[in-house]
Amino acid sequence: MDHEHIAYDIAIIGGGVVGFAGAMYAGRLGMKTLVLSEMTGGTIILTDVVENYPGFKRLTGQELADNIQEHAMDYGANLVEEKAIKIVKCSESCYSIFTESQSFHAKTILFATGAKHRELGIPGEKEFANKGVHSCALCDGPIYKEKTVAVVGGSDSAAKEALVLAKWAKKVYIVYRGEKIRAEPVNMRRVEQKISEGKIEIINNTNVNEIHGAGRVEYVILDREYSGSKKFMIDAVFVEIGMIPNSQLAQSLGIATNSKMEIVINRKAEANLPGIFAAGDVADMEFKQAITGVGEAVAAVYSAYRYVNENEFICACNDEEFEKSIIQYGKGK
Amino acid sequence: MDHEHIAYDIAIIGGGVVGFAGAMYAGRLGMKTLVLSEMTGGTIILTDVVENYPGFKRLTGQELADNIQEHAMDYGANLVEEKAIKIVKCSESCYSIFTESQSFHAKTILFATGAKHRELGIPGEKEFANKGVHSCALCDGPIYKEKTVAVVGGSDSAAKEALVLAKWAKKVYIVYRGEKIRAEPVNMRRVEQKISEGKIEIINNTNVNEIHGAGRVEYVILDREYSGSKKFMIDAVFVEIGMIPNSQLAQSLGIATNSKMEIVINRKAEANLPGIFAAGDVADMEFKQAITGVGEAVAAVYSAYRYVNENEFICACNDEEFEKSIIQYGKGK
Repeated sequence: MDHEHIAYDIAIIGGGVVGFAGAMYAGRLGMKTLVLSEMTGGTIILTDVVENYPGFKRLTGQELADNIQEHAMDYGANLVEEKAIKIVKCSESCYSIFTESQSFHAKTILFATGAKHRELGIPGEKEFANKGVHSCALCDGPIYKEKTVAVVGGSDSAAKEALVLAKWAKKVYIVYRGEKIRAEPVNMRRVEQKISEGKIEIINNTNVNEIHGAGRVEYVILDREYSGSKKFMIDAVFVEIGMIPNSQLAQSLGIATNSKMEIVINRKAEANLPGIFAAGDVADMEFKQAITGVGEAVAAVYSAYRYVNENEFICACNDEEFEKSIIQYGKGK
Repeated sequence: MDHEHIAYDIAIIGGGVVGFAGAMYAGRLGMKTLVLSEMTGGTIILTDVVENYPGFKRLTGQELADNIQEHAMDYGANLVEEKAIKIVKCSESCYSIFTESQSFHAKTILFATGAKHRELGIPGEKEFANKGVHSCALCDGPIYKEKTVAVVGGSDSAAKEALVLAKWAKKVYIVYRGEKIRAEPVNMRRVEQKISEGKIEIINNTNVNEIHGAGRVEYVILDREYSGSKKFMIDAVFVEIGMIPNSQLAQSLGIATNSKMEIVINRKAEANLPGIFAAGDVADMEFKQAITGVGEAVAAVYSAYRYVNENEFICACNDEEFEKSIIQYGKGK
């Protein structure tokens, strides 16, 4: 395993818009910056159209991600497109970060690891993954041109996914366990328009219990009868029931999370250990948007900058300390 | 005096990037939105080049302000370009907002009134604004690569601005009226390091009396001789003698401010009165940037949206209540 002895001022875990916005500021503040990215671009690249990042009336998620990444790279961040699999303290003022093949040292860490889609946990869901079970309308919607699809969920995200699917599908059902979907007013109006056109239909107070088919999804079993049957013929199921923060790596380092597994931060984006910060979907802000995550990342990086300068510590783990950290905390696996 | 009886869901006081970013989100959330703007565009339009709003590598402050304003106006905010001079409670769930000629009702208020840089008040300062006279090293410092610049001021902020400028400039002078600059020890040590490298030089017990040039700043006149002359050749003057938050209107409504006169908010951007929010330079965040203010505004608007929906109150002050509020709190002057 290679390991770099040069300490980074900040290691940003996550190469989405939040991570790269942080990297841009870190670069401007003269911080030696590492971005470790498992999925460069992040979840926003799964978004068809972004209309709510202030300053851009309309662009694709991919375009926004590219813009912010290019902006950051201009300031000289070192982008390593590998998954961080372990982070340990190697000395009082130094963290060691491991990927499968490399390790790095950093004085501070910014978790910008985002969140992933929650699963229903029902029979057929794993079996038909990408064979009719999906979680990204933009990515997989075009497959279902003139087909009948269902979105499971009742959030604003679910509504937006249904609207995207309505561009291709013949008919989109929103299957929601609750009474009334909770879309933002602007999206609710759009859904209502599609309902009036017969493109979207809401099936409320209903759960999907099973997913079936031969090779691909053909039907689902609902927990109550709809149109006279619990068996409901459908070509695809888009599961849109929320997100799970990617906080496991932080948790293994001893970072506090809340009941939703979000990293608990304060207004300075500081987590509960010195030199550790978080921003975006992995952090415990109630309202999660690209723009709020980006704002948090900038605050986090400034806090990290202050922390590095105020402490003026030297982050330089020698081989002995480094080996000890591996022995003490376990290798990054 | 005209007054509108229709209640706005939110009245945003301030038409800078923070106010309009909030207005865009409020529009998307279906809120009836008023923007009262004394200086549309806000202080960012005084910034020559913005290179640190994630997503835009480089644009003018005016362009960024225009982009965000246009973005907001697409969602139907009512922009009234008048100064809000008085806000009073006209009923339990309703605020009355007065300009010189009109009044409005709103269920919630977002203070996005910004702050102003304290000025030296000397000849040339206004004339060369953004043509060599600046107040934000991080924003405008990179223009002066390999140039000679001066920071006027002796606070820790002034020292930090000088340190930021030292990354780009050939030489940074700190011109301070007092005996010894009051930087925090860590920054003082860093300034001393830069002094030993010949990068920074402190000119103490000195005031800048005049700023001169042809089109751009070329020299200043000091109130005492330095290196044998009161005329001091310099490419830029960064005036760092403090900020004044525009919080007077909020204070008159009973909103809590801190010792810096910043509105005290929590992570949801709530101030100490129900339905009152603040974001951006007027609020008590330590690190103030366009992007952090914009993020706060979005969080504030979401909090306001929740507040309006959860309370489902009716904001409708009748004439009697309205007149009473004026009698009780005084007319808006």
